[in-house]
Amino acid sequence: MLTVLAGGVGAARFLLGALEAVDPACTTAVVNVGDDTVLHGLEISPDLDTVVYTLAGAIDPERGWGLRDETWRAVEQVRRYAESAGVTAEDPSGNDAAGWFSLGDLDLGTHLYRTSRRRAGVPLSEVTREVAAAWGLGPTILPVTDDPLRTVLWTVDGRDLSFQEYFVRERHDVAVERVELVGREQARPAPGVLEAIEQAETVVVAPSNPVVSIGPVLAVPGVEDAVRAARDRVVAVSPIVGGAALKGPADRLLRELGHESTVVGVARWYAPLVGTLVVDHADAHLAEQVEAEGVRCVVTDTVMGPPGVAARLVRTCVDAARDGVRP
Amino acid sequence: MLTVLAGGVGAARFLLGALEAVDPACTTAVVNVGDDTVLHGLEISPDLDTVVYTLAGAIDPERGWGLRDETWRAVEQVRRYAESAGVTAEDPSGNDAAGWFSLGDLDLGTHLYRTSRRRAGVPLSEVTREVAAAWGLGPTILPVTDDPLRTVLWTVDGRDLSFQEYFVRERHDVAVERVELVGREQARPAPGVLEAIEQAETVVVAPSNPVVSIGPVLAVPGVEDAVRAARDRVVAVSPIVGGAALKGPADRLLRELGHESTVVGVARWYAPLVGTLVVDHADAHLAEQVEAEGVRCVVTDTVMGPPGVAARLVRTCVDAARDGVRP
Repeated sequence: MLTVLAGGVGAARFLLGALEAVDPACTTAVVNVGDDTVLHGLEISPDLDTVVYTLAGAIDPERGWGLRDETWRAVEQVRRYAESAGVTAEDPSGNDAAGWFSLGDLDLGTHLYRTSRRRAGVPLSEVTREVAAAWGLGPTILPVTDDPLRTVLWTVDGRDLSFQEYFVRERHDVAVERVELVGREQARPAPGVLEAIEQAETVVVAPSNPVVSIGPVLAVPGVEDAVRAARDRVVAVSPIVGGAALKGPADRLLRELGHESTVVGVARWYAPLVGTLVVDHADAHLAEQVEAEGVRCVVTDTVMGPPGVAARLVRTCVDAARDGVRP
Repeated sequence: MLTVLAGGVGAARFLLGALEAVDPACTTAVVNVGDDTVLHGLEISPDLDTVVYTLAGAIDPERGWGLRDETWRAVEQVRRYAESAGVTAEDPSGNDAAGWFSLGDLDLGTHLYRTSRRRAGVPLSEVTREVAAAWGLGPTILPVTDDPLRTVLWTVDGRDLSFQEYFVRERHDVAVERVELVGREQARPAPGVLEAIEQAETVVVAPSNPVVSIGPVLAVPGVEDAVRAARDRVVAVSPIVGGAALKGPADRLLRELGHESTVVGVARWYAPLVGTLVVDHADAHLAEQVEAEGVRCVVTDTVMGPPGVAARLVRTCVDAARDGVRP
């Protein structure tokens, strides 16, 4: 059994490797929901959708998010109204009426369905199961919690941004002072989450943003304790390669919050929870410093561009976990 | 100045005639919102949209609702999920996740924009003004109220249906015992509504369903009084022709609620508010019975199929109102 703590794009690519490397039916993804938001009244779960669409082979390969063969008629109509009325993304109310979040027409189907089901009282985990089943997925996809949990980024100029406002609207081009996880005290792990961590032979912390993707997963009461208890079997894949994030603002965020944006910084961040850190060849020279943080270091290819890399990376993680629990 | 109390399709066709027959800038539509609903979390205003799309020349001419050149990718995706999960329109919870309400992709843009603006605190009348302006409309389109007002149909088997559940999901193939207008006591006329009635030279009650289209318009406190005060200038166009509704369940609803589904029944229904009833040639033989209800009767072509009929009908109404106030 393999359980992956997951954010969006990086985690989805890793999970795609798991389809090849291990039994998909024994793979579980525990996915971040701190990025979830309500836009236009619709409940949007970007990381869950990225994971599902990627595993379904339906993700747009160029963009890395959203569906392939997508059309944009609805959101273009929204932008036409906004332009006519003078409603802009710079509106201090953060009014999504400006259409700054690109919702594809096919993708809207997912949000419409999820919103209806949620409003009818169906928990997010159950809706996610339904959506994943419609795409014929093998692995189990679990939101980390069915309760509201929202990542809020406080900027140095005193604004509080939702993750999507920060990431999409502001294109993460804004200095962050503090990250708050609203609802963390009340959130309960979704059904199956703790069991998936406790019973897994391997728990992988995917190469996702440690602060805003993995952070909210660990913040749900009980999850971090379960991961800590499994530490020997827990393997993280560094999202930082050669001092930089492959994608997104992980490096910048780590620095802004006072951490090193290197594999050593990642090792220090994860040390209480993770027995092994897998780093890229580009960071082989830092392996000793990683181990000085009390974390075993495994060096391999971690950049999941070329075919086969993700599956090999999954096997490396499974092997590392087996080594971790060897007496 | 011409003010039209309006439901959906029939009223929209009449208003299209007004574009030709009178100065569009002096035409105001006061539109039913009792049909409004929230589906998938989106705020839907079917009658407002039908009026706007029709006046914009963008309505689908075959269906009579929704936009031309429409695509259905989002709702087809919803239905795919629902089918996979076994969620059906027959679900007693009336769960819209089954996708029984056909939302086109372009049309969704209107709902996304309206929902965002409404959630940001913008009143429906202002959003409607923005939407109408984006389509370049001449006439003023007003929702009768910015407050929640919902038509609820109680069936003989004791179910309470929203108008869209009744009309779309159940295809109005269900016996109704009672119509309730939830929120009528608290609703206030939207800005401009009472003035549009008080100051108009002609007030037309469009050939819309008297019960579920015009009923909610008149139910907003102040509106019926304003119409009654203008009675001599108020002209209704009968939605019943030859004993039947041209479209929709007006005839059946009138009968189920104990009224005659003839122009005489319509005259009796509107008599306290309307000085003149315009009926079709098909009902010329009932003109005397209409007048016996205390309502002047004008006979003309009212079936707005062939080009020119709607414009002539508008001119007939304007003339009838002028005659009504002649000493």
